[in-house]
Amino acid sequence: MTRKRQLALGAMMFFPAGEHISSWRHPRAEAAGLLDLNYYKRIVQTAERGKFDMFFYADELYVWDRFDSSVRHANSIRPEPFTLLSALAAVTQKIGLAATISTTYNEPYHIARKLGTLDHLSGGRAGWNVVTSQTDEEANNFGQEKHLYHAVRYERAREFIDATQGLWDSWEEDALVRDKESGVFADPAKLHYLNHKGDHFAVRGPLNVSRPPQGYPVLIQAGASEAGRELAAATAEVVFAPGGDLEEAKKLYADLKGRMAKYGRHPDELKILPGLMPIIGATEADAQARWETIRDLTPPRLGLDLLSHYLGRDVSGYPLDEPLPFVPEVEGFNQSQTMLRRLREMIVQDNPTLRELVKRANSAFSRAFVGTAVQIADRMEQWFEEGAADGFNIAFSHLPGNLDDFVDQVIPELQRRGLFREEYAGTTLRDHLDLARPANRYAAVRTP
Amino acid sequence: MTRKRQLALGAMMFFPAGEHISSWRHPRAEAAGLLDLNYYKRIVQTAERGKFDMFFYADELYVWDRFDSSVRHANSIRPEPFTLLSALAAVTQKIGLAATISTTYNEPYHIARKLGTLDHLSGGRAGWNVVTSQTDEEANNFGQEKHLYHAVRYERAREFIDATQGLWDSWEEDALVRDKESGVFADPAKLHYLNHKGDHFAVRGPLNVSRPPQGYPVLIQAGASEAGRELAAATAEVVFAPGGDLEEAKKLYADLKGRMAKYGRHPDELKILPGLMPIIGATEADAQARWETIRDLTPPRLGLDLLSHYLGRDVSGYPLDEPLPFVPEVEGFNQSQTMLRRLREMIVQDNPTLRELVKRANSAFSRAFVGTAVQIADRMEQWFEEGAADGFNIAFSHLPGNLDDFVDQVIPELQRRGLFREEYAGTTLRDHLDLARPANRYAAVRTP
Repeated sequence: MTRKRQLALGAMMFFPAGEHISSWRHPRAEAAGLLDLNYYKRIVQTAERGKFDMFFYADELYVWDRFDSSVRHANSIRPEPFTLLSALAAVTQKIGLAATISTTYNEPYHIARKLGTLDHLSGGRAGWNVVTSQTDEEANNFGQEKHLYHAVRYERAREFIDATQGLWDSWEEDALVRDKESGVFADPAKLHYLNHKGDHFAVRGPLNVSRPPQGYPVLIQAGASEAGRELAAATAEVVFAPGGDLEEAKKLYADLKGRMAKYGRHPDELKILPGLMPIIGATEADAQARWETIRDLTPPRLGLDLLSHYLGRDVSGYPLDEPLPFVPEVEGFNQSQTMLRRLREMIVQDNPTLRELVKRANSAFSRAFVGTAVQIADRMEQWFEEGAADGFNIAFSHLPGNLDDFVDQVIPELQRRGLFREEYAGTTLRDHLDLARPANRYAAVRTP
Repeated sequence: MTRKRQLALGAMMFFPAGEHISSWRHPRAEAAGLLDLNYYKRIVQTAERGKFDMFFYADELYVWDRFDSSVRHANSIRPEPFTLLSALAAVTQKIGLAATISTTYNEPYHIARKLGTLDHLSGGRAGWNVVTSQTDEEANNFGQEKHLYHAVRYERAREFIDATQGLWDSWEEDALVRDKESGVFADPAKLHYLNHKGDHFAVRGPLNVSRPPQGYPVLIQAGASEAGRELAAATAEVVFAPGGDLEEAKKLYADLKGRMAKYGRHPDELKILPGLMPIIGATEADAQARWETIRDLTPPRLGLDLLSHYLGRDVSGYPLDEPLPFVPEVEGFNQSQTMLRRLREMIVQDNPTLRELVKRANSAFSRAFVGTAVQIADRMEQWFEEGAADGFNIAFSHLPGNLDDFVDQVIPELQRRGLFREEYAGTTLRDHLDLARPANRYAAVRTP
């Protein structure tokens, strides 16, 4: 009997208290523990109990302080991702551990080393979510006046990935001899120099960490712009796809998989995981009520300022009960073009009042699935079967409560349907995601 | 009864298998576990059992590949320090966790964040050893042709420390309100912007990590050049002082403490910990035999190349049984001037043969104390009482074996003499070292 194709599931965290911008206010959220190891330990151990493929922590490099409301009301505190993941590696056994790294404000040597070390210490469980960052505020924390232009960011990202993976190939698998008798620690013939010189980086190598257990830690991306899609088709092993309905998700899925052939890649080498925020109720009405509770947590001014942020333009002066008097232009926009495009579509299609647009913008990017555990599993199955998803990156409306509910109610339903593992079969994140281990580029050359 | 002044003790690691360049060959060293969490867990838990103030991991950012022998024979593999420390934070309760960060190849925002996060996750146990790096090979891994000049490195280091500490002050202690009812997460009046613009960095802030439990993680330095001493007197809370005899150590101790007043600091605000490698035997002869075993582990060619490295000049062509035909000049040397000065003194004073110089250079920087546990404790007590040390950074000739011996034999002897704690009295690294918690610069302004 061949096993049914299995869902891949990420347990996602952006705001540490939950996905929604005001999650920290939820009665079942823990607002005081955001830099406490025990808080994260409880979350990741619960995700491991649920047999998630990975814990996925999305990060940014600044305090969102563009508005008074954003400092006053939003949760601006977040641990440094790989410091967090490494501590979590010590208190888990199987679950993958992935987080965001900006290729715009980092150096390949440091990142290859951090990820390589985490992959070793965790026994092959590391993943990295490549982002190019989005804001001038981040640029200002790293000596720059302005954020890099969109196209340049993606060129730099591709070069960054290439250099980093090259550093992971510094040592062939059997380069470390460690023979105490002869005194030979390593075979110099199996040590390789990157000698990378590109437009953005010059990196000699070799790396002082041996080849990671996974060869390369799993590469994750989220960009959905044209440049982002090409980068994903060329390099990504997991794509996290936020927002959009079933039809949009199918289109993105087909588009991304369709672009891979020209890079010599098979569609199975990339797993597409739409984001999904499950709002779970005992009944559908109960779920709807829970959803309203979550939406009502956002102070009105914060919601308005969040919209201004997405638009890159202050809309707080416009009347709330009229439509905006302009349509935003995506071309040349230097924050997230994907988010702006979605907002533009809302405006063009429905011409909503500003008040309505605020409400929709505030939850449009999390893709809420609202219903009973069975209903949520139904929709997940539908997306999975109809070519919209290889799995999902699950965002939680509040933590740890909503994760507990998902693990206790939705996971067993998916397992009953044979769609999700009852136990981990392997030990590495690549094992969980059914991704092959990449060969060392230098060893491959030698053995034709 | 007032408690006797207490020793501060660091458990140091540079090469992961032990302090000596060929430690990995020792029968009781573990050469295969250098990226295995269980290896480090065993070491740091042993150090915690010994009540060490901290585990101290010294790092560098390259593979030492200047010579064929150095790749072939030396241990070039080392985990990224803060990835390692964070995992170790999850499996320990009290011991401080410190490691090296280069101010030459990093950004203050990333480092403030990593250290701040580690300090939070560990409950106030983080320390950082500020180094300026030493080699062109490191520069080549970060887009530079040449390593920065000595003086510029130290200017940059001072600016780096200042910016990083400023970022830690971004949030006042009581800035995070987290009131679910009112929706107020933070008080914007208690959030501060660094807006640093200097010769080397521009950093806006604020940091997206709240103020660390220790205020600032403990600041450690090792530079002993003129620039290094000034930086230490101005900023360091711990100085790690490698090499030299009792008289030299006393001079350095008096010199460093003497420089502090002009920076408005009290001598007790800086703890000076000479490095010490204990070679412990049941008898003195047994200890000497152990020491010979360790010295004999180094392949002759590796020893010669190590000397060439320290001198910044290839000496492999000179006759082994004659003195070198030149005296090295320290002025303008762009690696470690302290090491070169020590070698120069050996050459000027004793005019040794090259063979003898290799042997002495190969162990001169570790400062071996060879003897029984009682004899080693005697010498530690003498250094401590005679104004040469506030404690020691203990380096181990092989790991984990030599650490086990120190904890089982020397620590109890120090405890019997009332020189070292039997239990941790506090919970943070500052508690252990008896260092005050720095006030937030912004809060201090407001409450005169």
